[in-house]
Amino acid sequence: MRDALVGAAFQLFLERGYEQTTVDDIVTLAGVGRRSFFRYFPSKEDVVFPDHERCLADMTAFLAASGDEHEPVRRVCDAARLVLRMYAENPTFSVQRYRLTKSVPGLRAYELSVVWRYERQLAEYLRERFAGRRDGTLQADVIAAAAVAAHNNALRSWLRSDGQGDASAEVDHALGYVQSAFGTGPAPRPDGDEPEGAEPARDEPARDEPAEDVVVVVSRRGAPLWRVVQEIETALGPGT
Amino acid sequence: MRDALVGAAFQLFLERGYEQTTVDDIVTLAGVGRRSFFRYFPSKEDVVFPDHERCLADMTAFLAASGDEHEPVRRVCDAARLVLRMYAENPTFSVQRYRLTKSVPGLRAYELSVVWRYERQLAEYLRERFAGRRDGTLQADVIAAAAVAAHNNALRSWLRSDGQGDASAEVDHALGYVQSAFGTGPAPRPDGDEPEGAEPARDEPARDEPAEDVVVVVSRRGAPLWRVVQEIETALGPGT
Repeated sequence: MRDALVGAAFQLFLERGYEQTTVDDIVTLAGVGRRSFFRYFPSKEDVVFPDHERCLADMTAFLAASGDEHEPVRRVCDAARLVLRMYAENPTFSVQRYRLTKSVPGLRAYELSVVWRYERQLAEYLRERFAGRRDGTLQADVIAAAAVAAHNNALRSWLRSDGQGDASAEVDHALGYVQSAFGTGPAPRPDGDEPEGAEPARDEPARDEPAEDVVVVVSRRGAPLWRVVQEIETALGPGT
Repeated sequence: MRDALVGAAFQLFLERGYEQTTVDDIVTLAGVGRRSFFRYFPSKEDVVFPDHERCLADMTAFLAASGDEHEPVRRVCDAARLVLRMYAENPTFSVQRYRLTKSVPGLRAYELSVVWRYERQLAEYLRERFAGRRDGTLQADVIAAAAVAAHNNALRSWLRSDGQGDASAEVDHALGYVQSAFGTGPAPRPDGDEPEGAEPARDEPARDEPAEDVVVVVSRRGAPLWRVVQEIETALGPGT
């Protein structure tokens, strides 16, 4: 019933446009009554995003199941991957919805409020983990926003490409940037389908890498870290 | 006339509540016609946020006036300070609005859409500045989101304290965290009221630093940057 309503709604949204479709049109096509529609969806907007509530609940459960053994920034990135998984489950539907959302301002506003709820969940988790830190709430809010932005950058890139390509790899890459900026552990394996798995041995030399090609950085102890990093970036050149 | 409408609107919102106040009520109290209201404000929601359009325009102009001499992350943080300045211009009004926005879901949604517009401006600026970089759009989106989250964390803390305390110092501190995570330049002076001022000479040795105390880092060219940074952090020890 629920799936039938979503199917009927999207058929009409694509044929007539979102604004031109009423709830009555949807229930007529699905062959059910208005009350059935509102049992599943509080409003017409909700039928466009039928899975976010489930995904938000999954994220709550995932974060609640966290322990001290989970590096917090990595945990938040893993939680963000749950959203990607929801989109990637049904690429055709996700791409259709992306186009629809872009063209209807009301849906864009709805989507912003959903994104905000994900971000708050991640931030609340980090605030608890960082409770003893100076600037804990600041760091929590910033890292949660960064994780959401990275996730959405990769997700949108995949949706714009009509769901072609490896969404999971793109999101892993994007979240790796957040982990490298804020995390204390190594970046996740780009091919990792087991988020809690063993760490990749990324500090071992690649097979085809010339071992003699080295850069030596000499730094005064106590030099500000940004200055050292800047020197390394310059020394290693583009592409690092 | 515009100020009178805002004043009348807020008087009624505080007395009766936002939902219970109509545009007719506002124009009656202000002693003007409905058309005058809609000349200034497209909707009742807009009268709650009368200065964001001006502030968005200020930010556009500020970013457009940027040159290559501006370190991009710092520039974005300076742009975010324009928003704080708008709130700090009128603490009483800002605190009233903060309480109102928290209690009315429709206003919260409106605010999210405004925040999104600021964030997009910052991201677009960074995307241009990072145009030649690999992962330029990813980095732009993440840094813009981080700057907005840091700014809003400090702004909300100030609003929750009823506009007491030094909003500007709190925002500087919050944005300093973003600059330390992503910037290539030094963090801003915490006491700096002149955002475009001279840089502190942080790359010169401290007077009492033993010059012979050095760390040598040897890295393979092509090693992931996070791995190199991790080694340096370990080598330089705490406090860097």
